[in-house]
Amino acid sequence: MHDFRSVFLDDEASELVLLDQTLLPNELRYLRLSRLDDIWEAIRTLRVRGAPAIGIAAAYGLYLAVKNGKPSSIDDVTRMVREAKRKLETSRPTAVNLFWALQRMEQRASQNLQHDGSAGANASDAVANILRELRKEADLIRDEDAMMCRKIGEHGLSLLKPGMGILTHCNAGALATSELGTALAPLYLGNERGYGFKVFADETRPLLQGARLTAWELSRSGIDVTVICDNMAATVMKRRLVQAVLVGCDRVAANGDAANKIGTLGVAILAKHYGIPFYVLGPTSTIDWACPSGAHIAIEERNPEEVTTAWYSKRMVPEGVPTLNPAFDVTDASLISAIITEKGIARPPLSESLGAFRN
Amino acid sequence: MHDFRSVFLDDEASELVLLDQTLLPNELRYLRLSRLDDIWEAIRTLRVRGAPAIGIAAAYGLYLAVKNGKPSSIDDVTRMVREAKRKLETSRPTAVNLFWALQRMEQRASQNLQHDGSAGANASDAVANILRELRKEADLIRDEDAMMCRKIGEHGLSLLKPGMGILTHCNAGALATSELGTALAPLYLGNERGYGFKVFADETRPLLQGARLTAWELSRSGIDVTVICDNMAATVMKRRLVQAVLVGCDRVAANGDAANKIGTLGVAILAKHYGIPFYVLGPTSTIDWACPSGAHIAIEERNPEEVTTAWYSKRMVPEGVPTLNPAFDVTDASLISAIITEKGIARPPLSESLGAFRN
Repeated sequence: MHDFRSVFLDDEASELVLLDQTLLPNELRYLRLSRLDDIWEAIRTLRVRGAPAIGIAAAYGLYLAVKNGKPSSIDDVTRMVREAKRKLETSRPTAVNLFWALQRMEQRASQNLQHDGSAGANASDAVANILRELRKEADLIRDEDAMMCRKIGEHGLSLLKPGMGILTHCNAGALATSELGTALAPLYLGNERGYGFKVFADETRPLLQGARLTAWELSRSGIDVTVICDNMAATVMKRRLVQAVLVGCDRVAANGDAANKIGTLGVAILAKHYGIPFYVLGPTSTIDWACPSGAHIAIEERNPEEVTTAWYSKRMVPEGVPTLNPAFDVTDASLISAIITEKGIARPPLSESLGAFRN
Repeated sequence: MHDFRSVFLDDEASELVLLDQTLLPNELRYLRLSRLDDIWEAIRTLRVRGAPAIGIAAAYGLYLAVKNGKPSSIDDVTRMVREAKRKLETSRPTAVNLFWALQRMEQRASQNLQHDGSAGANASDAVANILRELRKEADLIRDEDAMMCRKIGEHGLSLLKPGMGILTHCNAGALATSELGTALAPLYLGNERGYGFKVFADETRPLLQGARLTAWELSRSGIDVTVICDNMAATVMKRRLVQAVLVGCDRVAANGDAANKIGTLGVAILAKHYGIPFYVLGPTSTIDWACPSGAHIAIEERNPEEVTTAWYSKRMVPEGVPTLNPAFDVTDASLISAIITEKGIARPPLSESLGAFRN
């Protein structure tokens, strides 16, 4: 499908390989990391980003921390797993997928430790066995993500027609996941089948994931993509250049309110005004059943320098003038035409239809 | 009112003084220009910008071209006026105010030439007289602008209440005019009267006039201003942080459709969604009675590098990926709560109410 991968394991070299997303779109460079500190740094500084990709990087990172630590006993393994998990958890404190992936890795290790303990295997065999199990769990996390994205893509594509103009915001694509992405998955599958989509990517201030990442990965796959400033979306819709909006999601409340990258809410309101379907795509693991509505989703306020200075050659806001920099906004369920998951498509009223995905 | 001026004449030094807006917000530097080529360059490269400010700069520029040319005869003056007008007209080919101001200067000169011709004055007196007339006309263009902005400000302020949160887009302020601005005029007048507005300035991609210029001039005047990325306007409205939107306009059609900086349309749709009044402010000279609706307004498509590269430390869109860069969009009259001019306030239906300003 792609000639690049956001994150993968080179087990022979005992290295995690990451496509350094901070250098895009100007440079395609892979980082080869074996030290836990370096993997931690890569996650923290957004060299790898996107919830699924972070989870995969963390899982392989934990595996490599144990493997490269050359444990000689079960106790060594237990300690290394715990230390790696604690360390990696601090890399992106708000990334739910990170904790979830590390939790799975720890559970896999502890299940196996108990098993080997009871079987009385010798230390070296037991250590080798646990390493195999950790590797399998990390592979599974990656493979499950790939499969989920493919299913989301198929469901999403069923709502689109050849030749459509599509608007997307931020990056919920191959770079954010193991393979196809979520919001961009229907575009990749459609492209394989000759759909000839015409995509408009919001540049997505302040971090420019649309301009730097979405435009990069779509154009590299031969998909027709045009970058627009966020404030041009209304004009693109008014000119009838797009017939659907596809966006990802970071967290969906039980009533269908969806948190996603800042600016998503505005796009949804514009789409409603122009009668253009607005689709939210993501795995059902993104649905937070304990969260009744968007009002309960806390919005992370990020560093002002991302707005005033980042990417620029010099500061672009006067010294002393405050900025807002919420990382996300919440799109009301009433603005969403459908939520598309690996389990199927939920239509309004979302507070009822989402329930079908609960198990 | 302000401790800076966007454009003024230093007649003793025979220099046009311009606040170089391309250096803001990092540096406050005045350019002192006496050569026509330098004034032309300053307009072309946006060192002075905003329709009224460009008109004023061009008027004084023509005056100085004649004065510094040291004409010894009426024929010299005629030639110099014509040459300066032709040259300056090419600096910003789409700026209506530029042509209008240069036209006024040429007419003033030609009226005076005829008058002197019939009076039979000697050459040196005649030349000195025309120079005085040209200076008067340029001063008049500036003074009329200042008065118009003040009236717009008073009308606009009548719609606002102390303590309100106000959203604005781009820069229609002191830097774009001789003194108070258009959209920002009510904020300056309100500030003098202790209104305590809380202003949110859209950064206004791609050229960042909101972040660089509006934030600079408002904060310098002690007005509380916060910069947001364009895609945060929806969140600011959803959080009920603003109770009115004030924007300028570049051209208003007879039916009330209003062309303004790209992104204005989107803000208007968001304001309508949240029930927030959306006000367009500008002089009645901006109303193009020959233009029946926004569909007849041609939208200038500007250089892609403004989106991909300008201000950045390096290119932020992959090589070969196209962009859109319309300079303006058209806000439908149905989205506008009122158009505020020096002659008063037009309310919907604008196609009827605007007519009162026709004479």
